[in-house]
Amino acid sequence: MALIMIGERINGLFKDMAKAIQERNPQPIQELAIKQTRAGARFIDINTGPAVDDPEKVMPWLVEVVESVVDTPISIDTVKVKAIEAGLKAVKKKPALINSTTAERKHLEQILPLAKHYGAAVIGLAMNEKGVPKDATDRTAIAMEIVAAADEFGIPLTDLYIDPLTLPVGVAQEHAPEALETIRQVKILSDPAPKTVVGLSNISQKTLHRPLINRTFLIMAMTCGLDAAIVDVTDNDLVDAAITSSILLNKEVYSDSFLKVGRGQ
Amino acid sequence: MALIMIGERINGLFKDMAKAIQERNPQPIQELAIKQTRAGARFIDINTGPAVDDPEKVMPWLVEVVESVVDTPISIDTVKVKAIEAGLKAVKKKPALINSTTAERKHLEQILPLAKHYGAAVIGLAMNEKGVPKDATDRTAIAMEIVAAADEFGIPLTDLYIDPLTLPVGVAQEHAPEALETIRQVKILSDPAPKTVVGLSNISQKTLHRPLINRTFLIMAMTCGLDAAIVDVTDNDLVDAAITSSILLNKEVYSDSFLKVGRGQ
Repeated sequence: MALIMIGERINGLFKDMAKAIQERNPQPIQELAIKQTRAGARFIDINTGPAVDDPEKVMPWLVEVVESVVDTPISIDTVKVKAIEAGLKAVKKKPALINSTTAERKHLEQILPLAKHYGAAVIGLAMNEKGVPKDATDRTAIAMEIVAAADEFGIPLTDLYIDPLTLPVGVAQEHAPEALETIRQVKILSDPAPKTVVGLSNISQKTLHRPLINRTFLIMAMTCGLDAAIVDVTDNDLVDAAITSSILLNKEVYSDSFLKVGRGQ
Repeated sequence: MALIMIGERINGLFKDMAKAIQERNPQPIQELAIKQTRAGARFIDINTGPAVDDPEKVMPWLVEVVESVVDTPISIDTVKVKAIEAGLKAVKKKPALINSTTAERKHLEQILPLAKHYGAAVIGLAMNEKGVPKDATDRTAIAMEIVAAADEFGIPLTDLYIDPLTLPVGVAQEHAPEALETIRQVKILSDPAPKTVVGLSNISQKTLHRPLINRTFLIMAMTCGLDAAIVDVTDNDLVDAAITSSILLNKEVYSDSFLKVGRGQ
């Protein structure tokens, strides 16, 4: 499938994962790593969650736990630079994805050299010290700063994933079309263009129809040129939507069994 | 909801309608007119189907049958100019929609004066005597000719619906993204822009996953600026997709009960 799916599930925000992390119990984490890989995840996102005091110690443990059962690359999801570095050091298999940096200069100066040193890809959020601008044009201007910094620090643009930032539709509805337009603009920003990514579930936070809103927004974002998304890869309707979008964008060849082919079956 | 849904179901291509038309039995037709109106149809499309020899006689009968039970405007769906005119003459309630004209000059010269005379809106297909071009730019150029002709014949552009033409993804997959791009281009063609419309079900012809492909393409087309679609308005998942798209495009106000609000409930 044309969409790079990043499995969101190993995250201390989920109760089962918070418990497993607290007890240093690898089994539930490894089950999810395997399940997400089988469902087509191209990266396994790992996030220690807010309850952990020492993410720089937990992150390497999580990397090891996941890499001991799957070959899928890791997405290291934390705002703490020390935890990012500790995670990158622990990675033994394929180059990781750093999730994420903002466009703040001091943040870029910390994260991008790490990405370069460890050969990791990196997600750049279209926000800076002033927050998330509403307008697509302003977000794209911030994305441009990240692109310039990636170039400066020697990160190939194909390893840069710009996240236009999706806010919950229930509280910031006017942001949704701006995020879509940002994706479209970023894809024509440079040649080669950076990749684009969204943390999908955020769009539906606190709504009563989360799967419907998630998959609808995913189709819309793919229509605008989205390359990757952090998603629940075990949501079959969502995966159907992503595969069907790939077909209708003519990025994958249609066959009657396109839903199976898109799942690599 | 932001999408203008045109109910596709009263069409002689469906066996139940072919039978009702042949027997001049109004009941099944009227049931569908009422059902589609309740489901949110803003126009009821009527098409005598290929089996009818005298559409110019059947069309006025169909108009009368439908208008006797609902106030919903009629979409007169036929390539026969005489049947279009006979249908328009029969309309007693709200201004109709002519479905459709191509960009062929002789076709425009027949249809547009009828639209003007009867105050009808009109669907203009992005094709001419040479057929349907593959590229979006060429389709948009044809749309531009229709826009110019509408202006020449005094049709307000808000009454003009450009159809980019959707071909079955199973046989003309490369056309799908071109149709989407045509919608985007047409919406910036003029100010005010003409409306855009698709005959949705065509995209999924002869595939094994028609509802999934239909609703996915509808979301994609709405993302590109689609205003209207000829659809099965009784397909609940499709209507959910359209309402959710309207919300995520910030064209309708979000509330927790947006699916009910979008249905006017």
